Amino acid sequence: MSGSMEEKKILDSIKLPQDVAKLSFDEAKQLAAELREVIVDRVSQNGGHLASSLGVVELTIALLSEFDLPHDQIVWDVGHQAYAYKILTGRKDRFDTLRKYGGVSGFPKQSESEYDVFGVGHSSTSVSAALGLLRAKKLKGDDGHVVAVIGDGAMTGGMAFEGLNDTGHFSENLTVILNDNQMSIDKNVGGLSRALAELRSSKEYIKVKSRVERFLLAIPLIGRPIARFIRMVKTWFRLFIRRNAPVIFEDLGFQYFGPFDGHNIALLKKKLEISKEINGPVLIHIVTKKGKGYPLAEENPSAYHGVSPFDKTKGVVPSDKETFTKCFSKSIVRVGQKYQDVVAICAAMMTSTGLAEFRKHMKLRFFDVGIAEEHAVTMAAGMATNGFVPVVALYSTFAQRAYDQLLHDVCLQNLHVVLALDRAGIVGADGMTHQGIYDISMMLSMPNVTLLSPCNFSELDRMLEYAVSDAKGLVAVRYPRGGQGDRLSAIPSSEGIGPRVIREGEKIAILALGVMCEQALEAADILSEKGISVKVIDVRCVKPLNMNDWRDLLQDISSIVTIEDGIVHAGFGKYLLSNMEDAGMMKDICHFVTLGVSDKPLVAGDRNTLLENEHMDAKSIVNSVLSIVQK
Amino acid sequence: MSGSMEEKKILDSIKLPQDVAKLSFDEAKQLAAELREVIVDRVSQNGGHLASSLGVVELTIALLSEFDLPHDQIVWDVGHQAYAYKILTGRKDRFDTLRKYGGVSGFPKQSESEYDVFGVGHSSTSVSAALGLLRAKKLKGDDGHVVAVIGDGAMTGGMAFEGLNDTGHFSENLTVILNDNQMSIDKNVGGLSRALAELRSSKEYIKVKSRVERFLLAIPLIGRPIARFIRMVKTWFRLFIRRNAPVIFEDLGFQYFGPFDGHNIALLKKKLEISKEINGPVLIHIVTKKGKGYPLAEENPSAYHGVSPFDKTKGVVPSDKETFTKCFSKSIVRVGQKYQDVVAICAAMMTSTGLAEFRKHMKLRFFDVGIAEEHAVTMAAGMATNGFVPVVALYSTFAQRAYDQLLHDVCLQNLHVVLALDRAGIVGADGMTHQGIYDISMMLSMPNVTLLSPCNFSELDRMLEYAVSDAKGLVAVRYPRGGQGDRLSAIPSSEGIGPRVIREGEKIAILALGVMCEQALEAADILSEKGISVKVIDVRCVKPLNMNDWRDLLQDISSIVTIEDGIVHAGFGKYLLSNMEDAGMMKDICHFVTLGVSDKPLVAGDRNTLLENEHMDAKSIVNSVLSIVQK
Repeated sequence: MSGSMEEKKILDSIKLPQDVAKLSFDEAKQLAAELREVIVDRVSQNGGHLASSLGVVELTIALLSEFDLPHDQIVWDVGHQAYAYKILTGRKDRFDTLRKYGGVSGFPKQSESEYDVFGVGHSSTSVSAALGLLRAKKLKGDDGHVVAVIGDGAMTGGMAFEGLNDTGHFSENLTVILNDNQMSIDKNVGGLSRALAELRSSKEYIKVKSRVERFLLAIPLIGRPIARFIRMVKTWFRLFIRRNAPVIFEDLGFQYFGPFDGHNIALLKKKLEISKEINGPVLIHIVTKKGKGYPLAEENPSAYHGVSPFDKTKGVVPSDKETFTKCFSKSIVRVGQKYQDVVAICAAMMTSTGLAEFRKHMKLRFFDVGIAEEHAVTMAAGMATNGFVPVVALYSTFAQRAYDQLLHDVCLQNLHVVLALDRAGIVGADGMTHQGIYDISMMLSMPNVTLLSPCNFSELDRMLEYAVSDAKGLVAVRYPRGGQGDRLSAIPSSEGIGPRVIREGEKIAILALGVMCEQALEAADILSEKGISVKVIDVRCVKPLNMNDWRDLLQDISSIVTIEDGIVHAGFGKYLLSNMEDAGMMKDICHFVTLGVSDKPLVAGDRNTLLENEHMDAKSIVNSVLSIVQK
Repeated sequence: MSGSMEEKKILDSIKLPQDVAKLSFDEAKQLAAELREVIVDRVSQNGGHLASSLGVVELTIALLSEFDLPHDQIVWDVGHQAYAYKILTGRKDRFDTLRKYGGVSGFPKQSESEYDVFGVGHSSTSVSAALGLLRAKKLKGDDGHVVAVIGDGAMTGGMAFEGLNDTGHFSENLTVILNDNQMSIDKNVGGLSRALAELRSSKEYIKVKSRVERFLLAIPLIGRPIARFIRMVKTWFRLFIRRNAPVIFEDLGFQYFGPFDGHNIALLKKKLEISKEINGPVLIHIVTKKGKGYPLAEENPSAYHGVSPFDKTKGVVPSDKETFTKCFSKSIVRVGQKYQDVVAICAAMMTSTGLAEFRKHMKLRFFDVGIAEEHAVTMAAGMATNGFVPVVALYSTFAQRAYDQLLHDVCLQNLHVVLALDRAGIVGADGMTHQGIYDISMMLSMPNVTLLSPCNFSELDRMLEYAVSDAKGLVAVRYPRGGQGDRLSAIPSSEGIGPRVIREGEKIAILALGVMCEQALEAADILSEKGISVKVIDVRCVKPLNMNDWRDLLQDISSIVTIEDGIVHAGFGKYLLSNMEDAGMMKDICHFVTLGVSDKPLVAGDRNTLLENEHMDAKSIVNSVLSIVQK
C-alpha cells in the first residue's frame, strides 16, 4: 500500500468487518475521515467512481456496525459506491490494485469476496437480487437480514419497481435503503416531516405500537375492529402530516422511514437497528451528498462521478483529447440542425453520451427519460411512428436492457430508429459487467437491422448522417470508448457503407471491424517487414451484408482473417463465413480465421492487456497470418 | 361473414369509427351487445383471446365516441383485448379471418390498419409508446390526444412504471386508462371513495378550480402563496378522504380519477371528456369484469383468456391432449419432490406455464412475481446465490424481456439457474410478436450457457432433471407449444445430452433440433421411398457443442442439412458450421445447408402453413437433399 496508509490509525485496527461495530462514536467519525482519504488517494491514482463512494462512507460504517456479515447480506445497486465497503471487508491491503487487471474490481463481484454477495454493474437489480437472497434464507430457516442499497437514480429503473412490488405484495422481510443524493435536505420545508418521521420510527414508538396492537387483537370480536380503527386513524394522521413524503412506497407495501441525514452515523445506526426489529418490508430514505468530504467533488459531483487519474490537489482537469463521444456530440448537433425531424433520447446519461450540446441547441427535441433504457427505446418507437427520427444514445452494455424493445417494438414494426452505441467493444477498467462486446450478436439476430461500425471520427460523422437520412429500420452505429489511433485518423472517409479496401495486398485479407482497423493495419506493417503482403478491409457494415461487394473485394483472396471487438463465436466473422458458405464462396477459401473476444466473461484491465489476452492485438493477427502462410 | 352478422342492426350502421359517437345511449348499449355476440361467435370458431376482449366493449365504445380517430391515437397494452376496437375500426367484414394466415391479426398491428397505431403483443409497452406518439404530436404542433389503455396486470411490469415516471415528471398531456379487471367493485368499502372521486373529477369542479387558481396566481406576491396554500389544503383533504385510493399515481405526477364502473358507457364518456380538458397526465382507473356478457367466461375468466375453438353453448372443454406444457408440469413436480433445493418461479403465468401443480404440492417453493420477467430472473439469481436451484418458467418470447438479466446477473456470475422455455419455435396464430424463434440466438452469445432442446416428452423429463441436478450455469430447456407427433413419441430416451442418431443412413445427414425431428424423420421416409438413405441426428444440445461427439457422428458424412425452429442465420446450424470450420471438419463436407426461420418478421398462421412458407416442412427438407444428390 502507499505511504499515506500508514497514518490510518482506526482503519488499521479493523481486521474483520465485525471490528467496525466496536468503535466509539468518535472513532467511527475518525474512520470515516480515514476512509475518505484512502478513497481520494486511490481514485486520484487509479481512476474510478469517486463522488458516489464518498457519499456512502457513513452508511457503510453504520451497516457494518449493525449487521453481522457475511451472515447478513448487503447488495449494493450498481455498485460503484462500494469502495469503503470493499476496504472494510478484507480488501484494504489490495485496494491499490483497484480496477487493475487481476486487481480489486471497481464493482462488487461474487468471485472476489464472500462479502460481495451479488455482482452488480448495471442499474436497478439490487431489490430483485436481495429478495432472492432473502427468500432462499427464509426457506433454509436462516434468520439473517438482507439489505439492498439503491440510489434515487436507480430507483427510476422499472426493474426496481418490479422488485419492490413483489417484496411488498408478499410482505417479505427486506430492508431497502434509498440513498437519495439528488435532493438536498431542505431545512425549512422538510423539518417537521423529518422530525415526525423520526418520532414514528423511534424504537419505543414501534414497541408500544406492537404491544397495544397485540393486546387489542387478542380480544375476541371487538379487539380486531378497534385495532383496525386505530391503525386507520394513524394512517390518516400520517398522511395528513406527511404530505411531502413519498407515499408511493407505502402503496407498494413498505413501511417508509425518512428522510434522514445519511452522514449521521449514530442516527443511521438507530434506524438500521429498528429496521431489524420490524417484520416486513422497510424502506429507509436517507439523504447524502455525492462527493462528501472532498470539496471539489461536493461542488461538482457529476465531474467526479467516474474519473480518470487526476492530481488530487488540483482536481479533475477536463481532457482536451478528442474522443468518439465528443465526435458524436458534434455530429448529432450538425445532423440535428440539418434534419428537423431528428430527436435525441438518452437514459440519464446526457453528459456521458455527449448529448449536452444537442440539448443546448435543440432543447425541445431532447429527451432524458431517466435510467430506463426499455422505456427509452419504446418511446423512440412511438416518436418514429409519428414521423420523427429518434437517435437513442446508450452505452453498448446498457442497450442490453432494451433487447426486447429493440426487437418487439422497433424491428418487428420496421420503424426507423437510430441507436448510437457508445463504449462498444472492450471498455477496460470498468470490467466484466460493462464490456460492450455483446451488441453485435444481440442485433445480428433481429430483422430489419443495419449495424454500422465506423473506424474513425469522420466515418462516425458520415455514418450518423446516413443512419438518419438514408437508412430504414433500426440503424445502430457502434463506436468505442476513447479516441482514434494514428493509423485510423489517416484513413480518409469514402462514400457508402459497404466494405472497402484500406490497404492493398495479395491472397490474404484481414477484415477488420471499426477501430480494430488500427490493429489490422499495424499487423500489415509488421507482416510487410517480413515480406508478406496482406490486404486490409474496413468492414464498416456488419448487417446487412452485400455479398456482391464481398465477392468483388475477395476475388483474389484465398485466406481470410477477421478481427472484431465483440464476442467472436456469434459475431461478424462467423456471420460472414456462413453467408459465404450459403453463397458458394467458401470453395475458393483455404483458411478462414475469426478473431475476437472469447466466450467467457471478460474481466477488467487496460484495453491493450485485454486485446493481448484475447489474441486480438496486432501481434496475434500477425501470428494468425503466419500460421496460414506456413501451412 | 357468418350468418349471425345479418341481424346486427347497429353494428351494420357503423361505417366509420366516427359513427359510434352519433349513437344514442340505448343504441350504444345495443352495440355493446351486438359486439359481444360477434366476438363470442368468432372466437368460438377461430380461437383467440375472449375474456379480456369482452371486458372492454363499453370502454371501446366510449373511446370511439369521445376521441377523433385516427387523429387522436389509442394504444392498447398487450393488445389481446382489441377485438371490439378492430371490428369498429374498419375490420368488421374481415373479422372472420381473425388469427388466420393473411387474416386479421389477433393483436393491433401497424401494417394492418392506420387505427392500429402501435403494434403490441408483449406487456407493459403502451405508456412508453403512447408518450412517444404524444411527444411527436406536440413537436409537430398537432393537438390530437393520445390514450394508453393498460390492465392492472401489465401495470406490474417495470416498463410501465418507467413510462409513467417520465410522463409525470414532464407533465405530459397523456391519458392513461387503468383497466382493472382483477379487483371487483366493493360496494361497502369503496363506495365513499368512488363517490368522492366522482365529485372531484366532475367537469364543473375542475373548471372552478382552474378559474380560482388562475385568478389567485395573477395577484402579485400574495396570490401565489395563497394558491399554493389552497392546493395544499386540498391535497390534505384528498388524502384524508381517499386513503384507499392508489396515491402512487399521484406521486408519479398523474391526476388520478376513479375507480369507475368500466361497463357504464355514459359514465366513461363523461370521464374521458374531462380528461381531454385537463392539461397534464391523467390516469383514469376503471373496473371491468373479464368475460363480461358471456356467463361461462364471467364465471371462470382465466379459462377463457386464450382459447382454442369451442362450442359456444357448451363452453370450453379442457383438452385431454398431452402437451409439452403438461409434461413439464408433471416433470417439475417429480423433480421438485426429488430435489429439495428446487424452487419454481413464473411471471404471472402459473397456469399457462404448467406450474399450478407444483404450487399445489410445494407452495413454499413456488414464486409468482407478476408480469416482471426481468425481476423474475434476477430474483432467481439471488436464490441461486444462496444455494437453491431456481427453475424459471417463461414463454420463449417473453424471455426476451430478461436478456440483460440472463446475461448480467446469471451468466456472467455463472450461477446455476434453469430456464424452462415454453412456446419455443413457431407458435402459430398469436403471430409475429409471440413467435419463440429468437431464444437460440439470444442465448448462443452468452457465456456459461447450456441450451437443450428435447424432441419428445420423455426427453423433456430427463433433460429437466439433468438441468437441475447435473448441469451448471444457465441451463435453458426449450420446448414447443402443443404435443409430440407420432414419429417423436416412438423415439426412446437415451443417456446424456449429446447428439444421437435416431435413424441410420449414409453420406447425407439431417441434423434436427427438438421437435423438428418429426419433419426430419418424415423427410427420411419420403427419401427412402425414392431410394435415398439419410442419417437423422437428434441434436439435443445446441450449446456447448462437443465437437468430438460430432466428429464421430459425422465421420462418413459428406453433406449436412440442419433444421431448427428458430432464426436460421444466427442459430444452431450456423453455430455448428463455424465450429466445424474452426475444428477443420469442413474439409470433408461438400454441402452444408441450414434450414430454419428466415430473417424477417414471421406472421400469424397455423404451424404447418408457416413451416411450408419457411421451407421447414418435410417436403422442403426432401428438396434440399435432392438438390444435394443431384449436384
